[in-house]
Amino acid sequence: MGQAGQICGDCAGISATAPSNADACQRWGADSPVNFLEIDIETTKLLANFLVDARWADVPDRIRHEARRAILNWAGCAIGGCQDEAVVKLLEAVRPFAGPPTSTVVGRGERLDALNAALVNGVSSNILDFDDTHLATVIHPTVPVASALLAAAECRKTSGERFLLGFVLGVEAECRIGNAVAPGHFQRGWQSTATCGVFGAAAAAGNLLGLTRQQMIWALGMAATQSAGLLAMGGSMSRSYSIGSAARNGLAGALLAQRDFTSSECGLEGRNGFLQLFGNQADGSAIGIGLGETWELAANAYKPFPCGVVLHAAIDACLQLRNEHAINPQDIRRITATVHPLVLAVAGNPSPRNGLEAKLSIHHSVAVALLFGAAGMPQYSDATAQMPEVVGLRARVDVIGSAQAGTEAASVSLELADGRTLARMVTHAIGTPGRPLSDAELEAKFKSLAGDVLPASRVQQAIDLVWSLDQLADVSTLAEALSPTVSSRT
Amino acid sequence: MGQAGQICGDCAGISATAPSNADACQRWGADSPVNFLEIDIETTKLLANFLVDARWADVPDRIRHEARRAILNWAGCAIGGCQDEAVVKLLEAVRPFAGPPTSTVVGRGERLDALNAALVNGVSSNILDFDDTHLATVIHPTVPVASALLAAAECRKTSGERFLLGFVLGVEAECRIGNAVAPGHFQRGWQSTATCGVFGAAAAAGNLLGLTRQQMIWALGMAATQSAGLLAMGGSMSRSYSIGSAARNGLAGALLAQRDFTSSECGLEGRNGFLQLFGNQADGSAIGIGLGETWELAANAYKPFPCGVVLHAAIDACLQLRNEHAINPQDIRRITATVHPLVLAVAGNPSPRNGLEAKLSIHHSVAVALLFGAAGMPQYSDATAQMPEVVGLRARVDVIGSAQAGTEAASVSLELADGRTLARMVTHAIGTPGRPLSDAELEAKFKSLAGDVLPASRVQQAIDLVWSLDQLADVSTLAEALSPTVSSRT
Repeated sequence: MGQAGQICGDCAGISATAPSNADACQRWGADSPVNFLEIDIETTKLLANFLVDARWADVPDRIRHEARRAILNWAGCAIGGCQDEAVVKLLEAVRPFAGPPTSTVVGRGERLDALNAALVNGVSSNILDFDDTHLATVIHPTVPVASALLAAAECRKTSGERFLLGFVLGVEAECRIGNAVAPGHFQRGWQSTATCGVFGAAAAAGNLLGLTRQQMIWALGMAATQSAGLLAMGGSMSRSYSIGSAARNGLAGALLAQRDFTSSECGLEGRNGFLQLFGNQADGSAIGIGLGETWELAANAYKPFPCGVVLHAAIDACLQLRNEHAINPQDIRRITATVHPLVLAVAGNPSPRNGLEAKLSIHHSVAVALLFGAAGMPQYSDATAQMPEVVGLRARVDVIGSAQAGTEAASVSLELADGRTLARMVTHAIGTPGRPLSDAELEAKFKSLAGDVLPASRVQQAIDLVWSLDQLADVSTLAEALSPTVSSRT
Repeated sequence: MGQAGQICGDCAGISATAPSNADACQRWGADSPVNFLEIDIETTKLLANFLVDARWADVPDRIRHEARRAILNWAGCAIGGCQDEAVVKLLEAVRPFAGPPTSTVVGRGERLDALNAALVNGVSSNILDFDDTHLATVIHPTVPVASALLAAAECRKTSGERFLLGFVLGVEAECRIGNAVAPGHFQRGWQSTATCGVFGAAAAAGNLLGLTRQQMIWALGMAATQSAGLLAMGGSMSRSYSIGSAARNGLAGALLAQRDFTSSECGLEGRNGFLQLFGNQADGSAIGIGLGETWELAANAYKPFPCGVVLHAAIDACLQLRNEHAINPQDIRRITATVHPLVLAVAGNPSPRNGLEAKLSIHHSVAVALLFGAAGMPQYSDATAQMPEVVGLRARVDVIGSAQAGTEAASVSLELADGRTLARMVTHAIGTPGRPLSDAELEAKFKSLAGDVLPASRVQQAIDLVWSLDQLADVSTLAEALSPTVSSRT
């Protein structure tokens, strides 16, 4: 470490090599663990400028529609999850500390202050593991962004167009930061939906709050220093808590930045910043290249099954085999699933003790698909996880990790009692961009999740409101439609 | 990655080698990036049991007294910092979202809900950079722990003894986890007071709330997945925000655990857990060895100067030189400070633009000590940072990083216009355990910080209450004494 070189006061450090811009933050030299192209040297500023300057007119129609699809899917997941034990416990814990009830807890006849509403909706919309996925990063992009944004939008009159713009930008920031650190980030053990989601929440809320460029830089810096979340939480309620906290903390950062509360000006690329600490051979240039030209929402996928997305290809293969052959589960001697090694890393639990753990079990998912011909909510209950037939069939599952299989692909082969072997390979699991769910399928998913919670008329009203969200004068109308009863605003 | 081996449902992973305990979480094998001794294989459980089982009778007298000293120092820092611009902005941002006002904002005639009070007191007690330091880890231990604990204690009647026990245990958890990851953790760029402080806050609040062993395991897990904070924030308000958030988030984790909200059962040592993700050759055994026998508070240090603790030895040397020789600052041609390389890494900024940046500048600190014969609050104001004489003298400072100097040591040599060279080496800076501040010096520090905020009678009352804290029936009495006016409790 030398004492020469140019200095960034914000980073309070010494640079080994002089940066190209004397006013810029200190960055790493030739031995940098983070790669930057020249264009992206001031990554935080570049991203902040985009988030402040972007206009709805810049967003292509297909991305606008994908945003509406993502919101519909998110709202269904939040309603379906809002009565989960985790949400009940969370509400009991936070209610005594909550402020003025401005913001809707989706699916429940209750409001909380915006920060707590963001937290609770983040948990409820993730707890079923039925949310959307940006497959390149395995981020569930909508949960932290929409949870923060809806809560903030209810604090002031917000048009549907304004809301959707914030949403598109939040997802863009979150997934581009995810791209910069993928795949090493996730492989190292970070829960990317939480660690990157906090940026998405800050970006979306910051856009909605009308932050200046300087304030947006600070909001992103506060997101960086609040970025957190460990994959170790998988199978417990805290998996969703990490994501709900990302929604809450991103919104908090935007609210602080609005008051000119300062942070580092290079929270992403600076020395001791996000890319250095959370990256593993990070590529910072992925944040800036093509900004405003390509859109990450285009690669968004929606789950047909409420479990880890990396399990979907194997489930798909099992359902195809079961539908095409008259298989009696008792006749299955051995099941061999060949999957991407990542599946074993995040969902390799052969003996899940409850529904939450089953959602991250390849063995369980394969077994229930073959046993019941389905992998829906009932197949991931605590009761099903403990059912003797399920436990028995799980024990006959072998899993092989192969880097040749992509995360969208899997093959399953069955050895039957009569000596036959049946095999099926799936290259693009249902629900992935190669075989996306249609709008009608997304509506059906919403109905199945919301049907037990909302009155039937309100289910259809909510669907209609989402499809016409750009025309909505006040997003509070949608928030009300996502509640079981009409509650007066305080 | 294999598919055989024993499995931990909580970690949802596959172990390459069978762990010694089939019920235990999955841990790393021989190539583990984390070292564990046999005794510490279930580190989270071991620590949780200690935090639940420990009794006040187990705490030695000298540690009890150190706890009172730490609380006095913390309260002074919070009062001295409570009118800082950062605290004013933070309060403006959080008030609209705050819940029932149960808990005191130290130094101000205002209460907030406990979570927000923990956040604000965490910021105010750190913002002056005048807080205490556990030198082995460079953690400022009291800020996150006391901020969370006082806020929680005001929600129920809490005796002084109960409060002090929670405090001692919180610091113990925080600093032992810090020991496990030091020095690589800090060197990598993590802000250890925030990343480890969240555990201290959870542990202290969890003890106060009377969590069961199982609940304490979950509280520590939630701390792990909320652990955050980047050194990149140094010189901005978000440095303190990260630490305030650690106080808030640790308390939130304890409150959730009290409702049986679950997390990983091996948040520290598990695969994809804290030690793996935040460690850099972590030594997990440092958490368990000697637990209940040695106490980390014994190594706590209190700052005589409101700036980065690693600057204190150099300041000390400059003050000694100035006091012993009649030096006219205009006669100083060149100043050479030889310091630990860490000083350059965290406080190597030669051109701080404001007071916050000056607090992390070795060049500024050396210059003001020689110019004014002092390094107190006025020397770290925005105005002083921009004063021409200060800027001029700073430009004559050379800094050499040498690994031979410890962080408590520094040497300074001055080249004078008359050809003389004066040099001074300090091996233990004033305020470090080798030359600790006396109780009387801590009282004087408290008086100087609180004197402009509290009425004189209340300053002495607060000091007396802290020294007799073990006898206090209700800690709320102390919280009230730390406010400028008597406010009625709602």
